[in-house]
Amino acid sequence: MRATLLHGPGDVRFEQVPDPVIREPRNAIVRVVASCVCGSDLWHYRGATTAPSQPQRIGHEFIGVVEEVGADVSRVKAGDFVIAPFYDCDMTCPNCRNGFSTSCLESGWWGGSDHAGDAMDGGQGEYVRVPHADGSLTVVPGGTPDDALLPSLLTLSDVFLTGHHAAVSAGVSKGSTVVVVGDGAVGLSGVLAAKRLGAERIVAMSRHEPRQAVAQAFGATDILTQRGDEGVQAVKDMFGGIGPDAVLECVGTKESMDQALRSARPGGQVGFVGVPNGGPELPVRTMFRSNVGVRGGVAPVRNYVDELLPEVLSGAIEPGRVFDLTLPLSDVAAAYAAMDERRAIKSLLLPGAARP
Amino acid sequence: MRATLLHGPGDVRFEQVPDPVIREPRNAIVRVVASCVCGSDLWHYRGATTAPSQPQRIGHEFIGVVEEVGADVSRVKAGDFVIAPFYDCDMTCPNCRNGFSTSCLESGWWGGSDHAGDAMDGGQGEYVRVPHADGSLTVVPGGTPDDALLPSLLTLSDVFLTGHHAAVSAGVSKGSTVVVVGDGAVGLSGVLAAKRLGAERIVAMSRHEPRQAVAQAFGATDILTQRGDEGVQAVKDMFGGIGPDAVLECVGTKESMDQALRSARPGGQVGFVGVPNGGPELPVRTMFRSNVGVRGGVAPVRNYVDELLPEVLSGAIEPGRVFDLTLPLSDVAAAYAAMDERRAIKSLLLPGAARP
Repeated sequence: MRATLLHGPGDVRFEQVPDPVIREPRNAIVRVVASCVCGSDLWHYRGATTAPSQPQRIGHEFIGVVEEVGADVSRVKAGDFVIAPFYDCDMTCPNCRNGFSTSCLESGWWGGSDHAGDAMDGGQGEYVRVPHADGSLTVVPGGTPDDALLPSLLTLSDVFLTGHHAAVSAGVSKGSTVVVVGDGAVGLSGVLAAKRLGAERIVAMSRHEPRQAVAQAFGATDILTQRGDEGVQAVKDMFGGIGPDAVLECVGTKESMDQALRSARPGGQVGFVGVPNGGPELPVRTMFRSNVGVRGGVAPVRNYVDELLPEVLSGAIEPGRVFDLTLPLSDVAAAYAAMDERRAIKSLLLPGAARP
Repeated sequence: MRATLLHGPGDVRFEQVPDPVIREPRNAIVRVVASCVCGSDLWHYRGATTAPSQPQRIGHEFIGVVEEVGADVSRVKAGDFVIAPFYDCDMTCPNCRNGFSTSCLESGWWGGSDHAGDAMDGGQGEYVRVPHADGSLTVVPGGTPDDALLPSLLTLSDVFLTGHHAAVSAGVSKGSTVVVVGDGAVGLSGVLAAKRLGAERIVAMSRHEPRQAVAQAFGATDILTQRGDEGVQAVKDMFGGIGPDAVLECVGTKESMDQALRSARPGGQVGFVGVPNGGPELPVRTMFRSNVGVRGGVAPVRNYVDELLPEVLSGAIEPGRVFDLTLPLSDVAAAYAAMDERRAIKSLLLPGAARP
């Protein structure tokens, strides 16, 4: 098969790799129908993380059709159309049962290694071996869905449910006032998630018109272009001088977290899902004085998908609107470049379109 | 009247000061019936904070009888027996209405200054002018209570409700598993609060037998004497290798916060009320990976007192057991020394007993 390999900064290639095989009885092989590029892939692409010593599989978001299952797989069968989370999990360990499958005691990461130490395929490829098929995969009822649904279904692999996790972690509920820091695909997903959870007023902080338009389509009631001290003051002013109930931090820099912490009202809550870049530390004295809580992290999307899938299938929500570029998987390098240069919010990749 | 003055490190004195007077129509004058020393008073006493340039009023926990009220006071009248929170608040501003009266837009701090910039009396004195009488004071129904109830009523001024805030901030509810870091009066109060909120298992981390005994009387199911890496491992082992749902951080040092963050299970929550000493910062990457949330701060006790007061009056809970030393207010220096030298968990002061 062919899959995406990261060779070094700015250098991703679609190349021939070995076909995956069932290695143990809980495995399944999935033929990828749609994949995409994540903002966190860009950190690797840009060389912000350690460069790989050898070409590295990449990509962690995919949906597709089960081709083959191991002897111990019972929930999933060949021919099922499935959604994979951006990690592998068993859904039986205490952490999975507590709702935090990202801390699965047998977790594995696409492009990395599984619980047994075996290499895992990346999501930006034609096929993927899934270590815990019964745990990780969610079967989409009704068989292979319409093409029009693929983008939104794919967001259940990561981006929309990561935005949802930000909103849940920030305690958003009916009547909440919410500010979203970050207008990338995750931030925009956070707007949609907050709307769905009943937020009354949702402020999207964005300076980019196309992203502002998506934010408004997703339910943002206000757009704010200010940042830093000005941004904090503008937010305070919008909410009676004290700030909103909840702030979704969807970037991961020191500046964005600072913006979030200073914007929330006393006793408010910051939900954060931006991968902390460089490890900004949280000012505990500021939190102590204001009683602003901070909660979030790597989103346990597998625990959320069953709740959200019906709304995607019915068309009640259309989180796939975060994709504004679609390319064949063989053009993966162009997909990365478009996001890196901010010409695209998020790139959708269709392996089928790449086939000769 | 006489009141306590902090002259410098290790030097508190009970001295003559001007009698308080009504300065504006929302004020009341309260005759203090019981007061006490707080762990946070010790930071000043030990010189950990900037030494005062002139002798400073101190003490922020008191209950007593209203002697006089200003023209605009309507909820409180002379003769009422009242509980004061450890700060002054109006209970009408948005922050007070949101449940965070410690962030009152007209807040003031005993021994400091009020919203108008006027000096505020300390709680360790014979009388106190209360700036927002209708906001701050809670009237105890039934008039002056039995002496036996005074210690528990006094804990509603700060210590028990601060422990309660730790438990609420940590999300303790029916069936929760809880670890309490810190065996001071606040930590012990946290044990009682967790028990009251329905926690199923409560581990008190303590090496001091008298404190262990209070913790067990308050509902601790387990006592753990290990600390640091050993303590974290012991806690993980007690809860299926993953840790408890909630950890109450009731100390305020870098070590205690580290202990709390590393002990909670993935997706768990740390409720913190220890005044951060020196400002330990929170490791956001650790929080991101584990999804452990952190929430807490200066406890909005005025927002909790109405809910908890009936249980104190009925004897359903007896939070006053944290007091293990009672002295006349004139012996305030001995009360501080006993706590400083860890001979007492918490010292109760009775101004009435000091009168000639």
